[in-house]
Parts: sequence; C-alpha cells; structure tokens
Amino acid sequence: DDTEEPQDLSDPYSGDPSRHPILKINSQKPFNAEPPPELLTENFITPNELFFKRNHLPVPNINPDEFQLIVDRPPGLKQGKPLKLSLKDLKTKYPRHEVTVTLQCAGNRRSEMNAIKQVKGLEWGTAAISTARWVGVRLRDVLLDAGYTEDVSGTQHVQFEGLDQDITGTKYGASISFKRAMSKDHEVLLAFEMNGEELPKDHGYPLRVIVPGVVGARNVKWLGRIIVSEEESLSHWQQNDYKGFNPNVDWDTVDFSSSPAIQDLPVQSAITEPCPGQTITPDHDGKVTIKGYAWSGGGREIVRVDVSMDGGKTWTVADLTGEQKEGLKWAWKLWSLEAVVPIEAKEITIICKAVDSGYNVQPDTVAPIWNLRGVLNNAWHRVRVTVGEDH
Amino acid sequence: DDTEEPQDLSDPYSGDPSRHPILKINSQKPFNAEPPPELLTENFITPNELFFKRNHLPVPNINPDEFQLIVDRPPGLKQGKPLKLSLKDLKTKYPRHEVTVTLQCAGNRRSEMNAIKQVKGLEWGTAAISTARWVGVRLRDVLLDAGYTEDVSGTQHVQFEGLDQDITGTKYGASISFKRAMSKDHEVLLAFEMNGEELPKDHGYPLRVIVPGVVGARNVKWLGRIIVSEEESLSHWQQNDYKGFNPNVDWDTVDFSSSPAIQDLPVQSAITEPCPGQTITPDHDGKVTIKGYAWSGGGREIVRVDVSMDGGKTWTVADLTGEQKEGLKWAWKLWSLEAVVPIEAKEITIICKAVDSGYNVQPDTVAPIWNLRGVLNNAWHRVRVTVGEDH
Ligand SMILES: [Mo]
Ligand SMILES: [Mo]
Repeated sequence: DDTEEPQDLSDPYSGDPSRHPILKINSQKPFNAEPPPELLTENFITPNELFFKRNHLPVPNINPDEFQLIVDRPPGLKQGKPLKLSLKDLKTKYPRHEVTVTLQCAGNRRSEMNAIKQVKGLEWGTAAISTARWVGVRLRDVLLDAGYTEDVSGTQHVQFEGLDQDITGTKYGASISFKRAMSKDHEVLLAFEMNGEELPKDHGYPLRVIVPGVVGARNVKWLGRIIVSEEESLSHWQQNDYKGFNPNVDWDTVDFSSSPAIQDLPVQSAITEPCPGQTITPDHDGKVTIKGYAWSGGGREIVRVDVSMDGGKTWTVADLTGEQKEGLKWAWKLWSLEAVVPIEAKEITIICKAVDSGYNVQPDTVAPIWNLRGVLNNAWHRVRVTVGEDH
Repeated sequence: DDTEEPQDLSDPYSGDPSRHPILKINSQKPFNAEPPPELLTENFITPNELFFKRNHLPVPNINPDEFQLIVDRPPGLKQGKPLKLSLKDLKTKYPRHEVTVTLQCAGNRRSEMNAIKQVKGLEWGTAAISTARWVGVRLRDVLLDAGYTEDVSGTQHVQFEGLDQDITGTKYGASISFKRAMSKDHEVLLAFEMNGEELPKDHGYPLRVIVPGVVGARNVKWLGRIIVSEEESLSHWQQNDYKGFNPNVDWDTVDFSSSPAIQDLPVQSAITEPCPGQTITPDHDGKVTIKGYAWSGGGREIVRVDVSMDGGKTWTVADLTGEQKEGLKWAWKLWSLEAVVPIEAKEITIICKAVDSGYNVQPDTVAPIWNLRGVLNNAWHRVRVTVGEDH
C-alpha cells in the first residue's frame, strides 16, 4: 500500500538505513562518513556504529531468505553451471573463520592533499580507517568447493560483483589476484558477521568480502557474484579509479592503464589527540598525552611510531598497543605518548610517523605524493596546536 | 713447503682472493667494496667482478671435494643425526632452480647518513647493490629431504652458519623465518652458480644462501650448516646489528632487543648518472640523460620512478627496463630519462624517488630516518650538478 510507506521512488537512496548522528558526513548520497578522530582511538575494535562508511552507490535492500551467492566454476565443470550458495549454505558448508582486520579507504587523509592542490574525491579527514572482528568463511574454501585448484593457469584474478547498482544497472565491482584469494596465509574472507553482530546494512548485509591488508575498495560489500578470470575486474573502480600517479599527472594527461590498481596499502599513521587548533595544557611535568593509530598493508606489522613535538627535529618512540597474532598482521596498533612540550613554546607542530616490519617509512610531505584522485596520502601527520598555561 | 708459498700466517686475510682494481674499497680487511655507480647501471645483470662485495670476516679456503653441508633433522628423526650433503649431492639430488635476484647491503647509501651525523659502519656510496642470476637448489627441497614438513610448530626460524670465522672461531650467522624458507613463492636458494659461473670466492664459494627480497646480511656465504630452531640466530649480526632505530636513539641508549632484525628491505632508488659535482651539458633540445636503479624488497615490483630537475618542485616519470617474471619480483629496474634542464639554471639538484607495487614510497630526507648503524637509507637520492654551456 503506497500510502503507508511513503518513499520517494525517484530517489534510489530512499532505502538507505539510518546512521549514528555523531558521524561526520562527507557525502549523503551515496553515504560516506567517518567518526570523530578522538573517538576512533578510544577502542582497539571500532564499534560498528562508529566504523567509517564508504558507499559508492545506494545501499541495496536484500532479502536474506532469497539471497544467493553465485560462484563461477572452472571451464568444463558441471556444464559451466555456477555454484549457488544460500546464506545458510555459507554458514554451514564451510569452516567458520574469524579475523581482526583494519580497513582503510584509499582516500583517507585526502583533505590534506586538497590543501596542496584540489583533487577529485570526497573530503576525508584522518578517520576513514577502522578495525573490526569479522566472521565468515574463507574465500579459498568456497573456490575449492566450486572446483578450483591452486593451479593458476587461466585464473589470475578473482572478481567480486556487488548487488549495489546505479540507475543504469551498473554494479559495483573489484578484483584481487587468484593467488591471494587461494592463500591460506592471506585469510580472504566472505564475512557475514562484524563484531559479533550480523553485518550492518551499510557494511554489506548480508555478505561482504574482507581482503586483509588491502585497500577498502576491494572489500566488496553486498557480494552477489564471484567471477574467476584472466583479467582484472573491468569495473570503473578497478580500471579508472583507485590508482596512484606522479604528482605532475593531471586530468588532461592521465593514462589510467599506466598504473596498477591499488591492492596492499603503504604504512600509515595519524594523530587523533590533540586536534588541530586545540589549546593543549601541559601537566606539572610539562607533558601532554598524544594519541593516534598506525597501520600498514600487506600483512606488515607496525614496529615503531615516532612522535615529534618540535616540528620534526627530535623524535620520541610512542607506546604501542595491539593484538598478538601468528603470521601476517592485519590490524592496526593504537599508540600513545606522554610527550614533553618544548619549554616556552607558544605554538607547536606535533608530528607522527610509523615504521612497519618491512622497515617501510612514511614520506615527510604531502606534495610529492599528491595525485589527481587524492589517494594514498601517507605522509607524516602534522597537528598544529597552541600551548596553554600550566595551572 | 713454507718457502714456496710465502704467506703471512699472522694475517687471517692472507688467503683472500684478488679483486678487480676498479672497485672502490671501503675496507680491505674484511674486504668490502663497490663498483663505480655509472658502471653499475650499464647492465641489468651485474658482471661478477663488479658485483659489490661485503665480507664480515676473512674469506675461508674451502676444498670442494671435502665440503659438506650439515642440515638439522627434526627431533627424533634418524637419532638426531644431521643430513650431510656433498656438493655433488646438492647438484644431483634436488631440482635445479634459477632466479634473478638483486642483493642490497643494509648499509647502502650510508655515507649520506654520515653527512647528517657520524654513524658506525663502512662508508658505502650508492653501489652496495647488484643483480645476478643465481643457480642452485631450493632450500625448501633440502629441508623436506631432511624430514621437515610445512607444519611450523617449534620450527619458527632457519639459521645459516657460514664457514667464515674470526680468530676466536666465531662464525658468521644469520636466520630467516621457517615460513619463508619453506615457501615456494619466496624461492630461497642454496646457490652454487652466479651468472653462469661457479660462485666466486668472494661471493661464497662453494655454496651460499640467496634469500630474494631480503637484506644482504641474511644471504649467508660459505654456507656450512643449517639449523632449524624456535629462536632466531644468536649471532651478533642477527641480534645486535642490522636493525633500525629511532633517529634520537644513540649508543648510550640503544636496546637492540627492541627492534626486529631487518629482513625485507624498503623501496629504494638512486641516480648513477650524472655524478655529484659533475658539469652536465644539455643537448640541442636542452636535455640530458639521467640514469639510475630502483628496487624494493619483499617481492614488490618497482612500478614508477619520478625524477625532478628542480629540487623536487616538479617530477617526470622515467622509463623503466627490467625482467618479465611471474609471481613475486626479486630484481631491480634500471631507469633512464631524457630530462629537460631548467632554462638559465647554473646549478641544479637532480632527485629521484621510486614507488613499488604496494605503493610504498621513499621518504623525502635522510635525517628523520638516521640511525646509529647507518642502515636502511632509502631517502630520495639527490645529485647536485653544474650546468655547462650548450655548444
Ligand atoms: Mo575507498
Ligand atoms: Mo649488509
């Protein structure tokens, strides 16, 4: 009955769920929002309602009882008929697997790139990154069940197709390498739980991909179909977006085919406390608490975070907290430091920089890594603050 | 007969081989030397006599007919008697494997760190890096033959002991993870050939380890023994050397146990032509040729090199040459650019910086990555030159 459920049928976003009002909204349609940075680092595991949201399209309304995941079969198997899996099949046919994974949007910290020179993209601050415990089944187990083996001939990529689509029917899509998909060590998951709850609608209900260590964009939500192919996904987001370029390449000169699609992300860190422009008040020892996060892609662990209170002249090692885990490391470290404020300073620039287990470091400045899409900003994070009087 | 072979028996280095006179010697005993940078990038494969040499101890004199590699067995197997392999065993019992690998010393480009503040270590320039085709057998195959399986319980590390030793009998040693040692993808090799020849004496004759993507120090030469253990190698070089630290940690405050042993190396690049201080002469189009190398550890491929002719304000993408290879990438890329010299410039700073397939980048400057041992310098490489007149 039309009159009972007033819905603007001309607005494809009218079915989007409600969201927590504390989120800072970067775009309403599609919905893109991040939590306040100081809340982000209050917990190692980000509460679901605070987890950053990055939608490319309207949130699809999926009936869990009718939901089917369609999985390609190898050529010649079962007359080419795909494997079809209900939610119940997914939850009962394969071993359950849990993994704590930090997801980061490629555009995290884009606003600092915009400050150098305007880029195309949403104005993300420092909080397009969050951490959750994901439960689901290994993509590997589903691909093996569909008939694939570890032999990669003709099967270089695994494409994910979302059930979210634009007005022309074009669906969100992305791909990862077949090698990664089949790797036990890489723990690629088809997830149906997030922090002990069903996946929230904004995070892909009822099923999404979790690709540990890899840019958010490949962690396809509302997963509908898995395609195994010689080519990467042909989607806009795989081919003509989410790639890095030289800082002097702009929209008139860009050749998207010249750069690889982003997969593993580089080492990252940011200060979440204090905030830019804040007045900090040193305690009796002349110290203030500085807090933040650090993370690296590719399974690399954060091994050190350095903090500077004098614009980069001297550096002190911060205290790290994280998770003990065997093998590759997928989750961030939170860090904090009781830092000495330089005597008689009125204004200071606080800086952080992290080192990962491959001894990768962050670049000093944003301009030399600027790129037209404003992705991959992992320069040192700087926060300028005013120093108040000790009472 | 003592009189026929005059040898200074008090000098443990008296048995060292002769070396190519063009090498720049950083230390005579032990022998450490690098080629002239402009020769280094003349060939994708470095000729054996130009390959950088990094010895920690005297070169041992090993009789190939008496050589035996001693390999640990899992507890309880064959009464704990180790597997013993002659050179002939190694060459006939296991599949032959070839891989092109770039090796880099952790101290490459240390002289730029010294220019910031004195470090302890050999004064390497930009050429403590070279590339060869190595032939040998997979470490994995030897460990499987010794009775190990892919199960890692109690077998976290694989230690390598060299036959080179100091005056007290202490041997060179290092270790890598058991996981890496057993990985097909990582192609860890026990090598007996280098560029189609027997291993030269300086490069580990008759047998050395090649650990693709990993710091030179773990590529143990004159390999004598393989130990599988729960701990890393207890050697000085694994425990108290070849680690990175915060720039404000110095010898009075350093805690070597606080940092992980270097394994995978971060993204690197350097300019090999022109040389610092050289006068460059632009051609009729106002251009000069700039050349160099770029490489990254961990199997990551170099995807881009940016060159700046104006001290970092603008950047142009260089042309890359390399090798086609499936899977992880272990070899460097050589790069070149016909670069436009800024009009009316008298002196310019040429800079290069590389990006790897994980979109890792090099840091802008050396001081913030300075460390007391002068390792891991992968800052942008800068070459200051004078601009001559066009004829
Ligand atoms: Mo993203
Ligand atoms: Mo080294």
